[in-house]
Amino acid sequence: MSMQFGPSYVRAIAPYVAGKPISEVAREFGLDEARIVKLASNENPLGMPESAQRAIAQAASELGRYPDSNAFELKAALAARYDVPADWITLGNGSNDILELAAHALVEKGQSIVYSQYSFAVYALATQGLGARAIVTPAVHYGHDLDAMLAAIADDTRLVFVANPNNPTGTFIDGAALEAFIAKVPGHVAIVLDEAYTEYLSAEKRYDAMSWVKRYPNLMVSRTFSKAYGLAGLRVGFAIAQPELTDLLNRLRQPFNVNTLAQAAAIAALNDSAFIERSAALNAQGYRQLTEAFERLGLEYVPSDGNFVLVRVGSDDGAGNRVNLELLKQGVIVRPVGNYGLPQWLRVTIGLPEENGAFVAALEKTLVVA
Amino acid sequence: MSMQFGPSYVRAIAPYVAGKPISEVAREFGLDEARIVKLASNENPLGMPESAQRAIAQAASELGRYPDSNAFELKAALAARYDVPADWITLGNGSNDILELAAHALVEKGQSIVYSQYSFAVYALATQGLGARAIVTPAVHYGHDLDAMLAAIADDTRLVFVANPNNPTGTFIDGAALEAFIAKVPGHVAIVLDEAYTEYLSAEKRYDAMSWVKRYPNLMVSRTFSKAYGLAGLRVGFAIAQPELTDLLNRLRQPFNVNTLAQAAAIAALNDSAFIERSAALNAQGYRQLTEAFERLGLEYVPSDGNFVLVRVGSDDGAGNRVNLELLKQGVIVRPVGNYGLPQWLRVTIGLPEENGAFVAALEKTLVVA
Repeated sequence: MSMQFGPSYVRAIAPYVAGKPISEVAREFGLDEARIVKLASNENPLGMPESAQRAIAQAASELGRYPDSNAFELKAALAARYDVPADWITLGNGSNDILELAAHALVEKGQSIVYSQYSFAVYALATQGLGARAIVTPAVHYGHDLDAMLAAIADDTRLVFVANPNNPTGTFIDGAALEAFIAKVPGHVAIVLDEAYTEYLSAEKRYDAMSWVKRYPNLMVSRTFSKAYGLAGLRVGFAIAQPELTDLLNRLRQPFNVNTLAQAAAIAALNDSAFIERSAALNAQGYRQLTEAFERLGLEYVPSDGNFVLVRVGSDDGAGNRVNLELLKQGVIVRPVGNYGLPQWLRVTIGLPEENGAFVAALEKTLVVA
Repeated sequence: MSMQFGPSYVRAIAPYVAGKPISEVAREFGLDEARIVKLASNENPLGMPESAQRAIAQAASELGRYPDSNAFELKAALAARYDVPADWITLGNGSNDILELAAHALVEKGQSIVYSQYSFAVYALATQGLGARAIVTPAVHYGHDLDAMLAAIADDTRLVFVANPNNPTGTFIDGAALEAFIAKVPGHVAIVLDEAYTEYLSAEKRYDAMSWVKRYPNLMVSRTFSKAYGLAGLRVGFAIAQPELTDLLNRLRQPFNVNTLAQAAAIAALNDSAFIERSAALNAQGYRQLTEAFERLGLEYVPSDGNFVLVRVGSDDGAGNRVNLELLKQGVIVRPVGNYGLPQWLRVTIGLPEENGAFVAALEKTLVVA
């Protein structure tokens, strides 16, 4: 007998499926962990920067104490870096936490949230978790259709999510178009601009969303230390917005959501511009390596400005899962994206040159067999 | 002009006020950090166990990767320890995360949650954050009135929070009375039994709530690694319940809510029974030290089974804040509890013998002056 605990909208959620960890693939397929290549979760293949390793070693003596709930030092570092007051900053347990907090703080059951088809899965999860209504606009060339999103804003819309670059497709909206969109969104509708991959943008594509925050009280820019900064395992993200939005999120934020080592490591990584430059250069090189291979193999891919590429591995809706399984057997972990409505595609994270090479070799072998 | 973003119930929340970090008190009062005694946040004065320090040093090379979302190894360790299947376990970013997840997964706007006056502040915050209705039953001797809580359960009640021992008062409900209460709660109403301080119970007061979980599908037991286990800075808590409740929480859980180092350290600490015994013995000794001092000073206190004591420092409603400020000036951080409706009291965490001594000396000096 089922007791049917919980609201129906919670019971209806399909939980997020994470990239398989290396240890799990090793267990399931009887493989040696050391030989597994993981290109599944858009992690930095260089790992955590040494500067952050030194910072956590220094902070490790303080772990019996709760973290600084207000993260004085990390907020001071972010405030200096982005030229905003510290009380414009919200810290999250990864930017996932920021996205959930924003939805929870701004939207109640029955109201609506606008986002694009093929945009980050957490937007849908956060919407469902509130019993809110999702307004999902069709993608254009696998990216955001900003005009359609504007037109879709309803009377009960309280929040719009925009990812730039977008995950899992890697598409990019140029700064001028994006700011024009933000200017047109009604002032009572909040916009969360999710810039998890912004550090990978080439110089000519950069734009300064932090300066827009000063002009648009309904704009919140979300960033993460999990991608280019190499701190995925520690969990730190942050948002910058004017005090009214920031204050709302902080009413709901769990007071110790960002752990002590994450705070220390984030300060170090933020100041390690050499690491970010090296990561972005490695990524650009790996992007060329992967896309040249896709072109040689005659595989369609979506041009990407992130640290990953979406590639079509077959023309039937079983293709993504089938090729993924064959890759797993060869010890290569990438991400099937059937849950995004992209069952013919795989998302592959750009790794080290040898990791990219191992993926291409395994893919080639799989496609020949298939 | 205020845009009035967000639901009114979110705007009405007063954020949690954490214990002041040592660094903040040093800045505010111009004190030397090394001379500050912090007895404000119920942390283990022994800090993190050495076993956990070794575990995090080993895990530190993996921090560029996301944590294992399903925490295979930590769940296996907890499952073995508590003799439950791994799919009865929910992991949280501290037990704060568990409490929030439970409320969010089980209760929707307008429904009610029952908890006791003077129980943990997060129950109220989680209720407010949902726009749910709080049914707060009056305390008896600063602890839970279980009969009143049973009687207060309304048609729309979906969740009951019980803390044992209770924070911030330290009161304890014996196992037989607690199980009798759980048996009487209607099966469609979930109970979260918050046992954050259970490791401090003396042998004769122990009871086995984990075995109750097998009999009561509506019971969830919440535990933390932040108190006796000494891992407050890393953020790990967990809940054990049958699969229906567990599955609901995991639909809302952020997939990477528990960081990599927290998972590794928790496994080590869980197996470090010597550390827990030493912590509990030190706590019992410190409890005698503090309560003997309170008796000598003629101060009322609430007998406590936690790692803290609630002491009445004056008979007017300014007493708690006034004495707290004088203690801060002397470099002693404790917790005022006016936000709990206890403005004449302070909550002091049991520290090392010399820390307890420093607190008593500062308190005595303050009371003489006042």
